[in-house]
Amino acid sequence: MKFLHTSDWHLGRQFHNVSLLDDQKAVLEQIISYIEVNPIDALVIAGDVYDRSVPPTAAIEVMNAFVNQVCGELKLPIILIPGNHDGAQRLGFGSGRMRESGLHILSSFEDMINPVVIDSDIGPVAFYGMPYNDPEVVRHHFKQSVISHDEAHEFLAQKIGEHFVDGQKNVLVSHCFVDGAIESDSERPLSIGGSDRVSHEHFTEFDYVALGHLHQPQKKGEEYIRYSGSLMKYSFSEQHQRKGMTLVELDESGFKSATHIDLSAPHEMRIIEGEMQSIIENAQRDPKPDDYLLVRLQDKHAILNPMEKLRTVYPNVLHLEKPGMLVGVEQEMAQAKLARSEMDMFKDFFAEAQNDEISSEQEQALSQIIKQLSQQ
Amino acid sequence: MKFLHTSDWHLGRQFHNVSLLDDQKAVLEQIISYIEVNPIDALVIAGDVYDRSVPPTAAIEVMNAFVNQVCGELKLPIILIPGNHDGAQRLGFGSGRMRESGLHILSSFEDMINPVVIDSDIGPVAFYGMPYNDPEVVRHHFKQSVISHDEAHEFLAQKIGEHFVDGQKNVLVSHCFVDGAIESDSERPLSIGGSDRVSHEHFTEFDYVALGHLHQPQKKGEEYIRYSGSLMKYSFSEQHQRKGMTLVELDESGFKSATHIDLSAPHEMRIIEGEMQSIIENAQRDPKPDDYLLVRLQDKHAILNPMEKLRTVYPNVLHLEKPGMLVGVEQEMAQAKLARSEMDMFKDFFAEAQNDEISSEQEQALSQIIKQLSQQ
Repeated sequence: MKFLHTSDWHLGRQFHNVSLLDDQKAVLEQIISYIEVNPIDALVIAGDVYDRSVPPTAAIEVMNAFVNQVCGELKLPIILIPGNHDGAQRLGFGSGRMRESGLHILSSFEDMINPVVIDSDIGPVAFYGMPYNDPEVVRHHFKQSVISHDEAHEFLAQKIGEHFVDGQKNVLVSHCFVDGAIESDSERPLSIGGSDRVSHEHFTEFDYVALGHLHQPQKKGEEYIRYSGSLMKYSFSEQHQRKGMTLVELDESGFKSATHIDLSAPHEMRIIEGEMQSIIENAQRDPKPDDYLLVRLQDKHAILNPMEKLRTVYPNVLHLEKPGMLVGVEQEMAQAKLARSEMDMFKDFFAEAQNDEISSEQEQALSQIIKQLSQQ
Repeated sequence: MKFLHTSDWHLGRQFHNVSLLDDQKAVLEQIISYIEVNPIDALVIAGDVYDRSVPPTAAIEVMNAFVNQVCGELKLPIILIPGNHDGAQRLGFGSGRMRESGLHILSSFEDMINPVVIDSDIGPVAFYGMPYNDPEVVRHHFKQSVISHDEAHEFLAQKIGEHFVDGQKNVLVSHCFVDGAIESDSERPLSIGGSDRVSHEHFTEFDYVALGHLHQPQKKGEEYIRYSGSLMKYSFSEQHQRKGMTLVELDESGFKSATHIDLSAPHEMRIIEGEMQSIIENAQRDPKPDDYLLVRLQDKHAILNPMEKLRTVYPNVLHLEKPGMLVGVEQEMAQAKLARSEMDMFKDFFAEAQNDEISSEQEQALSQIIKQLSQQ
């Protein structure tokens, strides 16, 4: 029994005011090509299909075409959950009507306990989708005293566990931040101060856990608890990440293997560092001058119209940094600013808002709160 | 063979800053009650399901619940097209996946020539949906030289006619402004100056034409070319309109009958005229003081806080007019303003924009253009 696990498509995303939709389409075509020649039983999308709750029409059309091809023509079931970027109700419209034809949008708590059961060579496999929800929603819906993401996910995983059927393998699809995982710049935080972290231990009863939210492919705690990573790179901090999807194989005893399958966008996201002169010279030998670039200019002196100059050789320079221009004290200050603690930032905010310094009692109380939050 | 024809639901509409969603839900429940006890073969919605292309989430949820109940539980097919208020691509997401389970959203020109064929006691009946489109879109898509709505609809109806199958009855679902029909204040014009008008003669080949756009139930040219009218009243100008849906019956020879079935919103929209004193006195005997009201105060003298006073007896007074306060010259001026012709209004606009009076040649040319437009 094999299925593909993907997540974080973010269809319709803009990057430095450039639409990535054509790149996204090209990557989706790679997925379709894979499906056309490799026998698999399902495609899982673990949230953030779209980049926002009201996606642009063009992104909806791309998704619709994908779905028509995969479910309609290739007859492969798609199982997807909304992520924190998606609008669950909006995405979920008609989901009840689509299930018969192979598109399973699991967008509500009711859907969560009604798994998609797929018959395979190893018997029935149940896919449970946990739609992304803030702890407040879980607390309110189930009248439970859950406060953190961790407690919410523990509760939801238990809830699902009550519906396990003997003789079925169980796959969980969830969109959350499992503790200790590696972040990228392009994920929108689920909450501030670390309270979004979820322990992987709540998920150990499943045969496989298809996670979404984090953009770097990785396993968490167990071989069978994994992030597939995003469809493509969405920030320059991801320049060295291998993007793709995860081919999961289950057998009679449960999890068998997870294999990363590369997907590559037509334009890579890369960072180029150097002095203007050498960057322009080296560009001649660059095999992919159309990539989306962040250029870090090392020159120590001011340069007139640097963006214009760079775009003569690299048309898609999207962002320019000039760290070379920060010298001595200035550079130290900039670095110090980046390294400020929560306490320092709150003090600044307090001074700004109250027009007064924080008292030592207040500082002590705050320190306590920050400590508590960071332990959660 | 019987089906229900409705249109112009405008789910999510606000009226004078009041959400009508609860009223809309109540009316949808009346439709469901009807379906539960009366054997019919389909439900047709001729456009403007939502009030705007990005409807509020709450409206989507109401529609989703309706669809789940009607298609899912009552197993009645729904056939719908987007209207000028809907976003066709947005509404159409997953439509290919939903058809198997009875929700037919015909939102593209491809869908238009792939009718929903429903088997009935009189044999197969084909429902063709003509999604709302401006003439520009038709011109561009089909590479046709159509300019007006009339030409576009003539072309599209012919296009559909080419796909007629012998032995099938043919129903058209369209959202347009058929010439000579009665308007209300709550329809958004399709275009300015009468160029949105479509002749009913393009549609005479069909056995029934289920129209949407105009909010007053009415037939156009033939008994079998009809507007069902909107789900409920959406402007005070509709206060005397009977709202509801049309029960259509076809037999072996085609159209048999069309019957209006009343639907009533919990709050009516009404206009009350009179002097403050008598309005407040009469309110005691008003059986429906919660209705949404436009009050026309006839008093000739100023009244302090009139809205506040009225709302003590009529909590849902939404709009207040004081025609009694306009007397003599003032009243004449106001009436004159309302009666201004296109020419007068253009002259004002010209003077404002050009800082100059219109010349007699210009006036003549303009008069010609207005005449031409009004003849289209």
